Amino acid sequence: MYLKNQWYVAATSAELGRELLQRWLLDEPYVMYRTEAGDPVVFDDRCPHRRFSLSKGVLAGDTLTCGYHGLSFAPDGACIRVPGQEKVPAQLRAHRIPVAEKHTWVWVWPGDPDKADEALIPDFHWMEEDGWTVNVGYRQIECNYQLLVDNLLDLTHETFVHAATIGHAELAQVPIEARRENGTVHVDRIVRACDPPPLFAQCVKFDGKVDRYQLIRFQAPSFVWIDARAVDAGTNDFDTGLRWEVMNAITPAAPNHLHYFWGVSRAFGYGDDSITERIQGAIEQTFDEDQEILEQQQRHLDLDGSEDMMTNVHNDRGVVLGRRLVEECIAAEAIG
Amino acid sequence: MYLKNQWYVAATSAELGRELLQRWLLDEPYVMYRTEAGDPVVFDDRCPHRRFSLSKGVLAGDTLTCGYHGLSFAPDGACIRVPGQEKVPAQLRAHRIPVAEKHTWVWVWPGDPDKADEALIPDFHWMEEDGWTVNVGYRQIECNYQLLVDNLLDLTHETFVHAATIGHAELAQVPIEARRENGTVHVDRIVRACDPPPLFAQCVKFDGKVDRYQLIRFQAPSFVWIDARAVDAGTNDFDTGLRWEVMNAITPAAPNHLHYFWGVSRAFGYGDDSITERIQGAIEQTFDEDQEILEQQQRHLDLDGSEDMMTNVHNDRGVVLGRRLVEECIAAEAIG
Amino acid sequence: MYLKNQWYVAATSAELGRELLQRWLLDEPYVMYRTEAGDPVVFDDRCPHRRFSLSKGVLAGDTLTCGYHGLSFAPDGACIRVPGQEKVPAQLRAHRIPVAEKHTWVWVWPGDPDKADEALIPDFHWMEEDGWTVNVGYRQIECNYQLLVDNLLDLTHETFVHAATIGHAELAQVPIEARRENGTVHVDRIVRACDPPPLFAQCVKFDGKVDRYQLIRFQAPSFVWIDARAVDAGTNDFDTGLRWEVMNAITPAAPNHLHYFWGVSRAFGYGDDSITERIQGAIEQTFDEDQEILEQQQRHLDLDGSEDMMTNVHNDRGVVLGRRLVEECIAAEAIG
Repeated sequence: MYLKNQWYVAATSAELGRELLQRWLLDEPYVMYRTEAGDPVVFDDRCPHRRFSLSKGVLAGDTLTCGYHGLSFAPDGACIRVPGQEKVPAQLRAHRIPVAEKHTWVWVWPGDPDKADEALIPDFHWMEEDGWTVNVGYRQIECNYQLLVDNLLDLTHETFVHAATIGHAELAQVPIEARRENGTVHVDRIVRACDPPPLFAQCVKFDGKVDRYQLIRFQAPSFVWIDARAVDAGTNDFDTGLRWEVMNAITPAAPNHLHYFWGVSRAFGYGDDSITERIQGAIEQTFDEDQEILEQQQRHLDLDGSEDMMTNVHNDRGVVLGRRLVEECIAAEAIG
Repeated sequence: MYLKNQWYVAATSAELGRELLQRWLLDEPYVMYRTEAGDPVVFDDRCPHRRFSLSKGVLAGDTLTCGYHGLSFAPDGACIRVPGQEKVPAQLRAHRIPVAEKHTWVWVWPGDPDKADEALIPDFHWMEEDGWTVNVGYRQIECNYQLLVDNLLDLTHETFVHAATIGHAELAQVPIEARRENGTVHVDRIVRACDPPPLFAQCVKFDGKVDRYQLIRFQAPSFVWIDARAVDAGTNDFDTGLRWEVMNAITPAAPNHLHYFWGVSRAFGYGDDSITERIQGAIEQTFDEDQEILEQQQRHLDLDGSEDMMTNVHNDRGVVLGRRLVEECIAAEAIG
Repeated sequence: MYLKNQWYVAATSAELGRELLQRWLLDEPYVMYRTEAGDPVVFDDRCPHRRFSLSKGVLAGDTLTCGYHGLSFAPDGACIRVPGQEKVPAQLRAHRIPVAEKHTWVWVWPGDPDKADEALIPDFHWMEEDGWTVNVGYRQIECNYQLLVDNLLDLTHETFVHAATIGHAELAQVPIEARRENGTVHVDRIVRACDPPPLFAQCVKFDGKVDRYQLIRFQAPSFVWIDARAVDAGTNDFDTGLRWEVMNAITPAAPNHLHYFWGVSRAFGYGDDSITERIQGAIEQTFDEDQEILEQQQRHLDLDGSEDMMTNVHNDRGVVLGRRLVEECIAAEAIG
């Protein structure tokens, strides 16, 4: 069960062009392309005639023609040609879903098109903030999208999974603070006078111990922002040290398959390519580590047949609040 | 649901010999071989004792011995030896199904053996017509057999799928004529004064434009003959130009898996190996193109969970008549 | 349905050490290791917190720490640390099952721990008998454990499957004698004045014909001992010739997947490495042959959807008694 009246990232703006792009979103296959004017178009990938993949068809101008029997569709989904007949039935349409472009990503709205208000697109303005430098990435993971949300709402795992990059022993010793506020879930953790984790020390020069901040915000069903900071211990000077915003937009592809679009926007080292490169490598390594765990966790949950065998500990308070919020949103949507 | 009281091609006469041949037919595994006298034998591949593959056994003379515990079976299916006991229970038999050989193919009858009349074998005499030259082939495709029948009953797709061989733009512009007649479905299309498609022009010398004929005949559940002709436009001289009979015998292997036996018998270029070679290559390429589409279409239909999402257009009239005919035959067989 | 109140072999003593070993047993994944003192420990592989694999965690001293969020467990299963909280809930435990070590194997008891009496471990003392020499092995086979039991209770197949090693034509001509006695099933076959099978002749010097004995004992649900002997025909001198005990301990891994632990302990050629090597190669070849058959048989039974299509012949008398015994044991356990 997914939240349908919701904007999800379907692709990065950069990857969508005049090539037909096929991608699964919320258990359905879609085909995407840009018109000659550059507008994104997203159709159900299955031709309404014989269900063959429109993504295997031909785009000429703004018209997409199915590669099996040659039915042609305009960007609004209208069928404009059926070989062998003069009149085209009006109900013969490619199923198009609302699409928008914002914050360097292409967004789709799988639910009721009348409710597709672009003002509802989650705010990822840090992807394009003046004076900040961004690393971005995309990957697919073979697990339910909620497992990745859980992962991001309990960063305790950094100590055990990411010791080579962003983890360190002190993190796991400090409990989190979680709360729900204005329809979002917040999870905060402040680690005082700790060693900077390896990646931090490689990016920024610290005097010695640091105060480390992880201020997490979650918006249902699958958007997570992490305001991460480290400053010389005791200084409270946030104009110095390390600060970056880790942005996570997760789109369910299938029950145990997700798309993960992410960005790390930093306030320091503006435009410094060596730092950008170092961060890119470290983040990809970090997410490789997560991916291995999440896919194994999913296999075990499949075996259990439910998630009831999981037990919560104190640090799951953010996870619990997050899941409850998603359940409420889905229930509210079901009521209508 | 398959039509069971029906002859289906199980193998080509050429491929069946003294080697044990295993093949799936109508969702069941079979083993086939020829006796020393050359008669074809087809058994359920599962030994009645412990269900091991008889196709992994040993053929000595006309006796097939299971490779696990050594039970031996005569060509009529009778068990003639059980190691460790003198008497063999009469009911211990390999399950044999009726088999016949005709038109260069080996046919089986999966239904009631008492109804297996060889006169009911579909007429593929063009496979061995005096003065005609034949190309033949066999392949397996991972889709329901009806999708391939549909494909053959609406050749509009040639324009979009087979532009390199037998397709050209004009074909798709001419509607088909479909009718049911004497228990078969006919689909005709005549394209006047068109360019010959690439393969035609490579095989036969035309003066310029041609009249192209596609005269399709379908017999339930899965046999299609295409009488294809092209003559210089306006001449109506069918003793010249290109004429060939495309013969298609499709055997369901499993719900989404079929065997495709085909022949193309031509009236021109008798025994000309260079033409034969050219046709072979072009047809294989053409069927490769179909196979890719059919397998993708099947994946999407699996996802839909039914075929109800398909929409018919005018050119599906033959497809609709064909499917209705198959349904009637299956319903009639169920009543008995 | 498995017999749960039963000792099964989980690993060889040799393969279990300080590395975490993951293995499926009776449809569940387990992690195994030895404590610093050398005691074997077997846990459900799924961390009670978030179900991640404990086998991907870290063993330090006797403490196993989960590699996701860092919960730590003592060898008795007690959780002794949860990052971010002082108190650990008493019910938070790794699920541990009884384990014992005997006859060079590590045994587990998946059922009621209170009933896990080590005296119930099947007697495989031949694995370590003074003056005898042992070959051992382990493999996994993709079939239900009962098919391998069946295989071992009807050795008629040796003639047809293992002609290169332990089979010969005469074996299949002699019927078996099967009986149930003291809760075990016995299957005997004595072949008089036959040629020794190839492997026997390679291991021992015979004068000519031999009397061959196969004395099989089966204990539910999956333990088989074969007392195999061959002596010069008519001599009845069992202090000469070939004698070995083939020991088979089968552990269900999943419905169609088993672990096969075996040993062949021989009374002749004490410590002769060339004989040991020859036997090892021949047995592995023999079991390769069985494996191919069993996996194919399983695929056919899956297709049948049940085992009801199997027919019994005289030589299945041991198989029938064996299966009946297992059914009785499982039924008795269900009653409690």
